[in-house]
Amino acid sequence: MRLAVVQTNPIFGDVQTNIKQALLLMENEHADLYVLPELFNTGYNFIDANEVNKLSEPVHGMTYKSISAFSKKKLCYVVYGFAEKSDRLYNSAAFVGPEGLIGVYRKVHLYYRETLFFAPGNLGFPVFDLPFGKVGMMVCFDWMYPESARTLALKGAQLIAHPSNLVLPYCPDAMVTRCLENRIFAATANRVGRENRGGVDLTYIGKSEIVSPKGEILVRMDDKETGKTAVEVDLSVASNKRINEFNDLLAGRQASEYF
Amino acid sequence: MRLAVVQTNPIFGDVQTNIKQALLLMENEHADLYVLPELFNTGYNFIDANEVNKLSEPVHGMTYKSISAFSKKKLCYVVYGFAEKSDRLYNSAAFVGPEGLIGVYRKVHLYYRETLFFAPGNLGFPVFDLPFGKVGMMVCFDWMYPESARTLALKGAQLIAHPSNLVLPYCPDAMVTRCLENRIFAATANRVGRENRGGVDLTYIGKSEIVSPKGEILVRMDDKETGKTAVEVDLSVASNKRINEFNDLLAGRQASEYF
Repeated sequence: MRLAVVQTNPIFGDVQTNIKQALLLMENEHADLYVLPELFNTGYNFIDANEVNKLSEPVHGMTYKSISAFSKKKLCYVVYGFAEKSDRLYNSAAFVGPEGLIGVYRKVHLYYRETLFFAPGNLGFPVFDLPFGKVGMMVCFDWMYPESARTLALKGAQLIAHPSNLVLPYCPDAMVTRCLENRIFAATANRVGRENRGGVDLTYIGKSEIVSPKGEILVRMDDKETGKTAVEVDLSVASNKRINEFNDLLAGRQASEYF
Repeated sequence: MRLAVVQTNPIFGDVQTNIKQALLLMENEHADLYVLPELFNTGYNFIDANEVNKLSEPVHGMTYKSISAFSKKKLCYVVYGFAEKSDRLYNSAAFVGPEGLIGVYRKVHLYYRETLFFAPGNLGFPVFDLPFGKVGMMVCFDWMYPESARTLALKGAQLIAHPSNLVLPYCPDAMVTRCLENRIFAATANRVGRENRGGVDLTYIGKSEIVSPKGEILVRMDDKETGKTAVEVDLSVASNKRINEFNDLLAGRQASEYF
């Protein structure tokens, strides 16, 4: 399958323009699955919960309608981050395909001021069975907790679609460890640019990347430019957890010795 | 406290010489705690269980006597890897100090042909309260399983003493992730050299290192030379799990959402 990461630079609050920007990038790159950044439609640096409330959407809102139309037209799948309006507000990722909504993930590990606006995710880490393989999602700061990727791997995910808005420098290299320790693919789609709002100045590090189960960085984008990049991957190789003739990665866990 | 990693190149089976080599390196570097490689006294590449049986020692064996004498004389602590003869054979690490034996860890995640000779560790991941801080141990391939370092961090360890005999290239960079995701120090003591025995040809990668809770590589040795290197560290900083005013690393775990 052909897997793409899309690196955007959204204009805060301009949802229509941000969706257009993403669709334009995607139009120019054929892929079976596109991964877009966290909160790609709204921007990230909310000043208060009021702003989130105003810019958030239900799962089947305007952003879903635009993306799923693209998905239907191109017969492809898309994972994108958005502010979800439900019983509470969630920092979510939607998985859509030609058949419509596949599922939603709500970010479990909220970072920094997100804790002021969003409720922590309460849907666990779902894994979806697609024509090209099993895919789960995590969002940005979830990378910091090895439990996120481990949970997805134990549930059979072959690929982690990872919408992000990274500001710390550590994640791109850490994802190599996440892939190695789970023998799994990961596609981290990050944004670039800067948002200086309400006295909080954030610069996003770009470096969107796709990493293989052997920890190879198949693609890594730069730290300033928007763009998209795709690679051919065979997700089934992520089901082989054999490190050598004596070690099976997941079967080798010794749960009785853990905390 | 002053923390040292010692990078050796043992001669397979020549326990006396290997202990001497390690002590000589330690004599020339003052430290409060020295970390030596995995199986530093015997070498690593056993052909069969017979060899392990012959070269293994009870915890209080000859190797312990030599190292604890040094420890007493220098008023320092030493972590070293050895083949432990007990009810079964274990790939163990001993923690000794001026007062004698502090504790033993038995490698939980056995790698490759080790699974033919050793029983998996059955003592969990103990953490010891020393004058300079709380220290736990893991051995080599335990790095691959995030549960090892996580268990130690959850039990309060501020430093992971990590005797190793690394042959794969991934661990030195992965330890940066291990330290970041747990806000913990790690001292990985690896060996160098090559052992080609019984048709199994292993080259050890060196690169012994000390990494800080912020993922800084405080020291990293080269890949071929024996030697030792030490740094001053304040282990108490590893008790601060605050990433920022909104995020506490360990309190932020969302166990209900994990597998």
